[in-house]
Amino acid sequence: MKAQPEPLPDHLRALVGQSVDDVDTPALVVDLDAVNRNMQRMVEFAAKHRLRLRPHGKAHKSALFGRLQLQAGAVGLCAQTVAEAEALGAGGINDVLISNEVLSVPKLRRVAALAHQLYTRGGRLSLAVDSGEGIERLAQAMVLTRAVIDVYIEIDIGQGRCGVAPDERAVTLARQLAGRSSLRFAGLQAYHGGAQHLRTVAERHAAIVEAAEKVNAVRRLLEAAGLPADVVTGAGTGTFAHEAASGAWTEIQPGSFMFMDVDYLRNERDPAQPQFEPALFIKSQVISLADDHAVCDAGHKSHAIDSGLPEVQALPGQAPLRFANGGDEHGVLHPEHTADEDGPLSHLPALGEAVWLIPGHCDPTVNLHSHYVVVRGGLAAGRVEAIAPVEARGVW
Amino acid sequence: MKAQPEPLPDHLRALVGQSVDDVDTPALVVDLDAVNRNMQRMVEFAAKHRLRLRPHGKAHKSALFGRLQLQAGAVGLCAQTVAEAEALGAGGINDVLISNEVLSVPKLRRVAALAHQLYTRGGRLSLAVDSGEGIERLAQAMVLTRAVIDVYIEIDIGQGRCGVAPDERAVTLARQLAGRSSLRFAGLQAYHGGAQHLRTVAERHAAIVEAAEKVNAVRRLLEAAGLPADVVTGAGTGTFAHEAASGAWTEIQPGSFMFMDVDYLRNERDPAQPQFEPALFIKSQVISLADDHAVCDAGHKSHAIDSGLPEVQALPGQAPLRFANGGDEHGVLHPEHTADEDGPLSHLPALGEAVWLIPGHCDPTVNLHSHYVVVRGGLAAGRVEAIAPVEARGVW
Repeated sequence: MKAQPEPLPDHLRALVGQSVDDVDTPALVVDLDAVNRNMQRMVEFAAKHRLRLRPHGKAHKSALFGRLQLQAGAVGLCAQTVAEAEALGAGGINDVLISNEVLSVPKLRRVAALAHQLYTRGGRLSLAVDSGEGIERLAQAMVLTRAVIDVYIEIDIGQGRCGVAPDERAVTLARQLAGRSSLRFAGLQAYHGGAQHLRTVAERHAAIVEAAEKVNAVRRLLEAAGLPADVVTGAGTGTFAHEAASGAWTEIQPGSFMFMDVDYLRNERDPAQPQFEPALFIKSQVISLADDHAVCDAGHKSHAIDSGLPEVQALPGQAPLRFANGGDEHGVLHPEHTADEDGPLSHLPALGEAVWLIPGHCDPTVNLHSHYVVVRGGLAAGRVEAIAPVEARGVW
Repeated sequence: MKAQPEPLPDHLRALVGQSVDDVDTPALVVDLDAVNRNMQRMVEFAAKHRLRLRPHGKAHKSALFGRLQLQAGAVGLCAQTVAEAEALGAGGINDVLISNEVLSVPKLRRVAALAHQLYTRGGRLSLAVDSGEGIERLAQAMVLTRAVIDVYIEIDIGQGRCGVAPDERAVTLARQLAGRSSLRFAGLQAYHGGAQHLRTVAERHAAIVEAAEKVNAVRRLLEAAGLPADVVTGAGTGTFAHEAASGAWTEIQPGSFMFMDVDYLRNERDPAQPQFEPALFIKSQVISLADDHAVCDAGHKSHAIDSGLPEVQALPGQAPLRFANGGDEHGVLHPEHTADEDGPLSHLPALGEAVWLIPGHCDPTVNLHSHYVVVRGGLAAGRVEAIAPVEARGVW
């Protein structure tokens, strides 16, 4: 459901140029220096492996970060929802792939309108499909435009979610596309979401080797049918080095590498990948202090816990803390070390003191916030560089 | 972080008066008939037990539902954040209790401004405190107004989150309040969040019996100090019948009873409580169909899973489905029964078919959406009565 970006509240506008200390809590804070370093590492990886880089906008849901990625060398952006694609398009990004199925007729009308808009700007919109019904409905919606939309056939390479089975059924869909003048068969969408957080490098490697066999099988079937897949697009932050090594993909779609999160930081480090650093934080503060714990003002409304709880990022001089679930509006903080002669209280932060959290999962955490507070110069002594809207949060 | 309500997108405005079938997905749909029945049951309970009813606005985050509750007989509303209180105040609700600690100086300035606004309208704002520092900062902020704010001392009665220990320390805070002309000691905030989802009636009963002893101990200490607590406020949807039976509370703060959710529906039914029915749903639709599963367009962006996954609400004629985690934008649906001669596919919904979900936890689910689609006449054949903004979603 598309909505206009929320208006910028006055107290946020006043923050630009101020110290990070002045940011009220809870706030979604981005370390822009770290974002730029992460982006540079990914661009270098893609260039070295001669892969097109199409970062996933579902991670940041923001035209500002989309433009930053294009400027750094991305060929375009991915989106997971129509509203994300609209937000990226409205923000000046001309090449967007919705890597997901759209069946709703009202949404397909929006897809056609956006395809027309990007096409007349010299860009393109792409969409994934995995059913004949999806192709028919898309073609019906595209009748209202003179644009051409790029269509990727999504194949299920192991996740068991969306995607047609990696067999002749993919060829049937490609044939169906070939008969539609407003739809251009562009290639395969092949993403294995279930492999991203397999903890060991060996597990992730095995999953993508198996996935690559499926991709290659479908490629051969398509070539035999005279409908070759020009582009094979997929991969995420957990596995992209394996997709690169397989040679089966021509384009990668990682999203989380920009911000990172506790879940990705828990993966066994893959020496074949560049190392990314956490760049997205929740700034919270202590609102209650008991003998053995402190309570901060960040709970499920501030960070998503579908992939686990956040971790506390101790700044210089801060004792390590463990975050426990405190519900929607609270986090409960316990000292990591209590057996100290100073007693437990000495390890707890003071009332009003800032506590920085690394979210468990970046994408749905971003979705909870209307704005990013973009900071340069680090968390301890940084300054607010910009306030950026999360245009596509909570819209579809 | 206060923001203006998001503008109503045109396609939502056009929905009023239309069939629920026309609601695009994913959408937060409220069955208003069920809400009104749940509200009536709670009002009758409170009246019978001579308890003031102050429903918790953290559940709905909406002035519309707040006004509905006042009209039904509530004495006022609770809020958990300053932004919720501001949204309720802006929506015409004059008596709001922020049942939470506020330490941030910018937020305390907003508290003072709202206290002034409600005071001059003949209403009142109340706030919970659990520290001397909190009282000092509040008094400092209130210097800028001539209003009086009601202050509740929060005591920890078993949850181990916010609240001062239930001993002489509460009296110390009450004495500190007595010396501040802009702060009025109004009573005790005593909520046991940890007891709400203990599964058996016996466990919930035992937790609240213990909590009531702590409340009564503090009441006696305050009386002995000449600072009696006029109001003791607390309780939630899981336990309020036990607080009522204890005689220690004068006011109850349930929130979820209006909407209900899978987590509350899993509690053993308490015959001392009225029975509430699910009234909040996610309308989703099937976007992908495989041999053994379907995929709908509702994931972590549509419903919160901190208290477990949603359940599928089968409408007449729909086969029962089991919801499995599909990530941020997807839900994976499996047939509940597969050993059928018709084969599994016959139990799966069709592409584009609507699938209705009961969220695991209502409060953070509401927080993900910009608007409620308010429906009368049921899910299968209802009509859209109103589109109501979730004014306080994602703001603090």
